[in-house]
Amino acid sequence: MATPRWVKAIKDALAVPENKGKIVYQVASVDSHNIPHVRTQVHRGFLIPKRAPQVPLLVSSSDVRAPKVVQMLSNTTVELCWWMEGSSDQFRIQAKAHVVTPPDHALRGVSSQLPSVRALDEGGEEREDNETLLEKGGKYDWEKKRRETFEAMKPPMKASWCVPHAPGSRMASYDTPTREQWPTEVPDFADLKTDQDKKNYEFALSNFAMVVFEPTRVDWVQLGESPNRRTLFTRTDFAGGMEWEEQILVP
Amino acid sequence: MATPRWVKAIKDALAVPENKGKIVYQVASVDSHNIPHVRTQVHRGFLIPKRAPQVPLLVSSSDVRAPKVVQMLSNTTVELCWWMEGSSDQFRIQAKAHVVTPPDHALRGVSSQLPSVRALDEGGEEREDNETLLEKGGKYDWEKKRRETFEAMKPPMKASWCVPHAPGSRMASYDTPTREQWPTEVPDFADLKTDQDKKNYEFALSNFAMVVFEPTRVDWVQLGESPNRRTLFTRTDFAGGMEWEEQILVP
Repeated sequence: MATPRWVKAIKDALAVPENKGKIVYQVASVDSHNIPHVRTQVHRGFLIPKRAPQVPLLVSSSDVRAPKVVQMLSNTTVELCWWMEGSSDQFRIQAKAHVVTPPDHALRGVSSQLPSVRALDEGGEEREDNETLLEKGGKYDWEKKRRETFEAMKPPMKASWCVPHAPGSRMASYDTPTREQWPTEVPDFADLKTDQDKKNYEFALSNFAMVVFEPTRVDWVQLGESPNRRTLFTRTDFAGGMEWEEQILVP
Repeated sequence: MATPRWVKAIKDALAVPENKGKIVYQVASVDSHNIPHVRTQVHRGFLIPKRAPQVPLLVSSSDVRAPKVVQMLSNTTVELCWWMEGSSDQFRIQAKAHVVTPPDHALRGVSSQLPSVRALDEGGEEREDNETLLEKGGKYDWEKKRRETFEAMKPPMKASWCVPHAPGSRMASYDTPTREQWPTEVPDFADLKTDQDKKNYEFALSNFAMVVFEPTRVDWVQLGESPNRRTLFTRTDFAGGMEWEEQILVP
C-alpha cells in the first residue's frame, strides 16, 4: 500500500519554479438549499496516515464562524480545483471534508468514519520528525495537529482569526471605530509577551478550524503537455481495503 | 439604471499589470445527486444588455459534450470564484447560468426567463461597434454571438473543440493511434482554405457552447487593501425592475 501517484503529481507540480506560491485552491461546497458555493482556501500541507498512506489527506483551514463550516458538516462531499498556472496543471479533487473545531466548540463531536481518520487512530501520521501525534490513549491527537497548523502560520495571518466579529457579518463602514483596535499581528507562541498577546492568541485559536479533505477522485489535466493529457484517479473501497485506479481520459 | 459598481471593480482589477492574463475563474455547479463540481473556465468577456445595463452577463464557454453543460441546464444556480492573485482581489459571483448550444443541438430550446435575456431581446447589447446583434425579427441573435465568441479564439484554442471524442471519455493510452490526426489548429474563418479546414471549423463550432452567467450576488474581498475590505453586492428584483444593494462586510 503506497501513497497514490496523484500526490507525487501535485508535489512535482508545486516544485516547478513557475508554480511558486500556488498553494491555494478553490473549494466548492453545497448549502442546505443545494446551491453551490466556492472560495479560495490555502493548502496547509498533506497529512499521510502511517498505516494507510493510500488515503492521504489535504489540510486547509477556516474561521469556525464562516458559513462553509456548516456547509461542509452537513454535506461533506466537496470538490477542490487546484489550478497551477505556471505549468498549466489542473487538479480537480473530489473529497470528503472533515472539520476539526476547537475542543469546546458547539460543532465539535461530529465524528468521522472516514478511512483516513480510522487509520490515523491506529497508527498516527507519517512525519519527518518521527512523531506520530498519537495521544497517550492511542488515538490520533487532532487538537495537537490543529494547534500545530495554527502555529505554523505567520503572525499577520494568525491575526485574521482574531477579528472580533464573524467573517461575513455586517459592518457600518470600512473604517468602523473599533477597527484600529483589531490586531494586525498575533505573535508565535514562543514570542507571546503581554497579557494582551496571550489573550489574542487564545482568541484566534478559538476561531481556528482545521479543514481536512480525504480525496476519493482526482482528475488531473496537463495542459502544459503537447498533446494535452488527462488522467483520472478513482478510489475503490472494498471489504479488505481500498485501491486507486488510473484511467486515461480525453482532455 | 447603470452597470453595477462590481463590473468596474472587476475591470479595474483586470487592468492592474500584476493581474495580466487572469482571465480564468473557477465555476462551481451541482449535479443531480447534489454533489458539487468545480473547474477552471476562461472568461470571454462581458455582455451588457443595452436596455438593462444593471443585469450584465459574463460570457464563458464549454464543450457542449462536457458534463457541466447538463449540470448547468438542470441546476442553473452556479458560483464563480475569480481570484486575482496579483492584486489579491477575490470576486465570488453567484449567478444563473444560461447555455447557448448550436442551433440544431438536442439540448437547444431550453429557454431562459432571465431578465438579461429578456432585455437583450428588447434592445440588443452594448457594443463599441454599435451593432446591437438584433435579428431582423427583433430578437437578440444568440447564434451570431456564439459564432463571434468562437471566432475570437486563437487557432490552437479553436482546435480544442475539434477533438473527435467527448471530453472526459476513456482513452486507451495518451498516444492513441488516431491522436496525431486530431487537428492542433483550426484557422480563423477568413483563413479557411482546404475542405478539411472547413470541415474542422464546422465540427469544432458544432461542439462549441457559449455559457453566459447572470450574476445575482457578488462578494468582493480586497486582501491587497490594509485593512482588508469586503463588499457584498446583492441584486433585488421587484415588480418594476431591480436594483443592486451594497453592504460592507467583515472580511
